[in-house]
Amino acid sequence: MIAVDWGTSSARAYRLAPDGAVLARREGTGGILRVPEGGFPAALTDMVGDWLAAGETRVLLSGMVGSRQGWQEAPYLACPAGLDALAGAVVPVPFAGATVRLVPGLSAEDASGTPEVMRGEEVQVFGALARGDEDALICLPGSHAKWVRVAGGRIAGFTTSMTGEAFAALSGHTILGRMMTGSAEPGPAFEAGVARSADDGGLLHHLFGTRALGLFGRLAPEDAASYLSGLLIGHDVAGAMTEPALVRLVGSGPLMALYGRAIALRGGEAVAGDPDSAARGLALIGERTEWM
Amino acid sequence: MIAVDWGTSSARAYRLAPDGAVLARREGTGGILRVPEGGFPAALTDMVGDWLAAGETRVLLSGMVGSRQGWQEAPYLACPAGLDALAGAVVPVPFAGATVRLVPGLSAEDASGTPEVMRGEEVQVFGALARGDEDALICLPGSHAKWVRVAGGRIAGFTTSMTGEAFAALSGHTILGRMMTGSAEPGPAFEAGVARSADDGGLLHHLFGTRALGLFGRLAPEDAASYLSGLLIGHDVAGAMTEPALVRLVGSGPLMALYGRAIALRGGEAVAGDPDSAARGLALIGERTEWM
Repeated sequence: MIAVDWGTSSARAYRLAPDGAVLARREGTGGILRVPEGGFPAALTDMVGDWLAAGETRVLLSGMVGSRQGWQEAPYLACPAGLDALAGAVVPVPFAGATVRLVPGLSAEDASGTPEVMRGEEVQVFGALARGDEDALICLPGSHAKWVRVAGGRIAGFTTSMTGEAFAALSGHTILGRMMTGSAEPGPAFEAGVARSADDGGLLHHLFGTRALGLFGRLAPEDAASYLSGLLIGHDVAGAMTEPALVRLVGSGPLMALYGRAIALRGGEAVAGDPDSAARGLALIGERTEWM
Repeated sequence: MIAVDWGTSSARAYRLAPDGAVLARREGTGGILRVPEGGFPAALTDMVGDWLAAGETRVLLSGMVGSRQGWQEAPYLACPAGLDALAGAVVPVPFAGATVRLVPGLSAEDASGTPEVMRGEEVQVFGALARGDEDALICLPGSHAKWVRVAGGRIAGFTTSMTGEAFAALSGHTILGRMMTGSAEPGPAFEAGVARSADDGGLLHHLFGTRALGLFGRLAPEDAASYLSGLLIGHDVAGAMTEPALVRLVGSGPLMALYGRAIALRGGEAVAGDPDSAARGLALIGERTEWM
């Protein structure tokens, strides 16, 4: 089977053995925003045409490729939802030369009825679970960080935090940016920011404290981005991990270490999930999919 | 006496009767950022030269004019500080033709030792207190909103929140701005944002909810700025007004109504302070100042 995790700005394709093992992986030339109107069949052929020519007949897609801006819209499935529900809701996509299916995204509501949606992360979540793991708290750091609760083998619900995008806006477009050099790194300044996030007064007050510490020479310009990152990630973790827990982190890059440290400082434990969790999740859904 | 509230971007001058009554008020041509190096004596003469020529001999200044970027630096006075302490710490400024004094700003630390500073707001706070009021919670909305606790007639401490600047950065430089038309107004959308700020999950999660509500057609583009403003002001109020209280609001413009509504929704009561609170505060300090 061929599995493709096809998001807004990137695509990653995997050739999978019948047991789900990754035989080959490659980056596509870009996310769905790079595909012109009507261009998805050609884009898929560009990405994996040689694997199709070599005999693969099944392609399973996940991510924003199933959104209104993608190849074809796959309606959201409501939580709670497990692997069987996702496999039962795949959407067929017309394509000459292979059977192509789209995995739907998930929707949820939080306690107050505010809606939540995701596309692609649900596949990574199932791929990141340890074998036999029925209950878990999973975090996917990013511009819009997702926190996913798995219970009884199904995704029970999830929340999204605008952590990464808020960091970019605050460091790029407020007085805080003018006192910053360098980027966010794990270390004492990041940890001070995480510790500060536990204090009274709330995030908006803590943001001003970043400025005040700089004015008083108690936060060096080269440490300010780390401190701000610690503040924001600390608040994100506090909002989502309401009591110390084991958190499975899914993703890659510098945010993994930062979230891992913040989770530990707040009494939890972070473990890194499989970097090919999308491939594994798609394999698990593919096994359960009615392909005919 | 002449009183001047001289800030970063604006200046306001008052001619006061011996009992503190405002005989005349005028806007200066700009804040300290508009004054060239060495230009403060000329700027003061431009602003109030006719009042000096008419016989006034005392000028009391407050605000950023006493900062390093201003006319002369007046070192911060540490909280707690009352009117007598401020009057005892005024800094003389050389000026031909009148006795000019600068009121110092205040510094404080919050419970965790993070520093806080203000220049000018301390004068407004004392001017806003009702006669005989020894204890109060005072809020000065703005880019950097100040919350000031008055106890026993002195400023006991204060905190600053980056509420206004965060609103500008988030509405101007994140995905939230792309779904917004219009500006923040009191009304149902603002109130929904304030209500949301009381939910679990924290501000970073609530920010994403603004986006999600828009995606699902449950928040109209023309209501999104009001909702975001309600979220941020709601979080600001929750962080600073830890239990329902009477809050005296100092300032002017649309933020006054928004803060007033948010304080009421969180169980407090807001009253608007005197718009000429700076003049009244400077009069009270001037009475206590040793002018010779």
